[in-house]
Amino acid sequence: MTGQGRSADFVQSLERGLSVIRAFDAENAELTLSEVARSTGLTRAAARRFLRTLVELEYMSTDGRLFTLRPKVLELGYAYLSGLGLPEIALPHLENLVATVHESSSVSILDGSDVVYVARVPTKRIMTVSISVGTRFPAYATAMGRVLLASRPGEWLEAYLASVRLRPLTRNTIVDPVLLRDELRLVREQGWSLVDEELEEGLRSIAVPIRRADGVVVAAVNVSAHAGRGDAGTIREDLLPHLTSTAAAIQDDLRR
Amino acid sequence: MTGQGRSADFVQSLERGLSVIRAFDAENAELTLSEVARSTGLTRAAARRFLRTLVELEYMSTDGRLFTLRPKVLELGYAYLSGLGLPEIALPHLENLVATVHESSSVSILDGSDVVYVARVPTKRIMTVSISVGTRFPAYATAMGRVLLASRPGEWLEAYLASVRLRPLTRNTIVDPVLLRDELRLVREQGWSLVDEELEEGLRSIAVPIRRADGVVVAAVNVSAHAGRGDAGTIREDLLPHLTSTAAAIQDDLRR
Repeated sequence: MTGQGRSADFVQSLERGLSVIRAFDAENAELTLSEVARSTGLTRAAARRFLRTLVELEYMSTDGRLFTLRPKVLELGYAYLSGLGLPEIALPHLENLVATVHESSSVSILDGSDVVYVARVPTKRIMTVSISVGTRFPAYATAMGRVLLASRPGEWLEAYLASVRLRPLTRNTIVDPVLLRDELRLVREQGWSLVDEELEEGLRSIAVPIRRADGVVVAAVNVSAHAGRGDAGTIREDLLPHLTSTAAAIQDDLRR
Repeated sequence: MTGQGRSADFVQSLERGLSVIRAFDAENAELTLSEVARSTGLTRAAARRFLRTLVELEYMSTDGRLFTLRPKVLELGYAYLSGLGLPEIALPHLENLVATVHESSSVSILDGSDVVYVARVPTKRIMTVSISVGTRFPAYATAMGRVLLASRPGEWLEAYLASVRLRPLTRNTIVDPVLLRDELRLVREQGWSLVDEELEEGLRSIAVPIRRADGVVVAAVNVSAHAGRGDAGTIREDLLPHLTSTAAAIQDDLRR
């Protein structure tokens, strides 16, 4: 918040205003001025100026005491999504897949060392953490992330493996960079990744890449299933063929 | 962009920074500094400062010439969506409905005089304009909008009818406020709305309200179908029972 280490022409007001928007989430859908000041580290006077500005710009509303976001904030994120094009192309195919296999399916991309969900068709919720478009997870512990990591150039991947902090999210998470490199090599060779309770206990996910016409991997698509659906072998046999044909259908549409 | 008519403590830098984010969309996913300056009305120097700030904050990336949004911008809009709670609750039910009726289904809320989509499960695309979460349409020409308008207090509705500009989006659009008032009364009485090629030629949509435990209407849910599916009577007979039970299931979950 202090702008330390920022370049000379850094616009601190923009950073602060965005931090006010981000102060709101599922647990904090309505906040008072004091609460916004506390969570952003701004003075009350500064927080008031940003809140009033966001109300005037119709990104926020207030009853005089409590502030809430308005749907116009969606337009900030959706500029990004509509620019991608991919979610719009992928969603009908995900819908078909989910109707067939009765499990949730998502598309994600790599951003830094995270996967970020850009399209999702859920069934019943099977994760303790809810997932929506915009949700991010560390790439190393997810099937989509491994597909995307495996598609990166060798040099990039070595830098990633040298710097990433592999945390045990469950007792199964691969936390040894050497083992992760081996796993990524396998994913690259076989063209799919199955992650077995490494992100969350009880959750398995299988993912394949989505390639542009020139072969470059631009995203990954997955199906996730509760461990109760069967073991890893069953997941692969039941779901991989459907997933592969879904990816092929998305790729066909992408190339049109 | 000039801040004219704004309150004394209006933070113009925040308005300008947000306008830079909004300069990007599906047709303008990659922009140069000059293009951003032109579309926002900022000087090149100002546009450069905002673009650099957004790159530093990881909302944007650049190859030195072209700027693009990064997925972190999704987190701005999703603070709003996750705060609503509703989309997450509704989506699995929409998915079930779409798997049954093979037509797209959405949930939207009223923001000012617009409906804004907050959840959507598409099938094949049937509209010329693509719809995603965050898309808005004038409430008067949509089935979800009419359900939401019909739920508003009489005083609010009269002020709306007195001020709204009803534009003929197709040759069928109701553009007479007196006829619209009658139609909204019918929607209130029957508990659903069917809009027949008033938003777009060839498109029919049927919608019902989603109520909180205290009876207040918080959103609307619809199914939309190409005119080729059958006439308005067929749409109602085929789709309304499924839509009504979907709304009931969402309401049950909302009240838990």
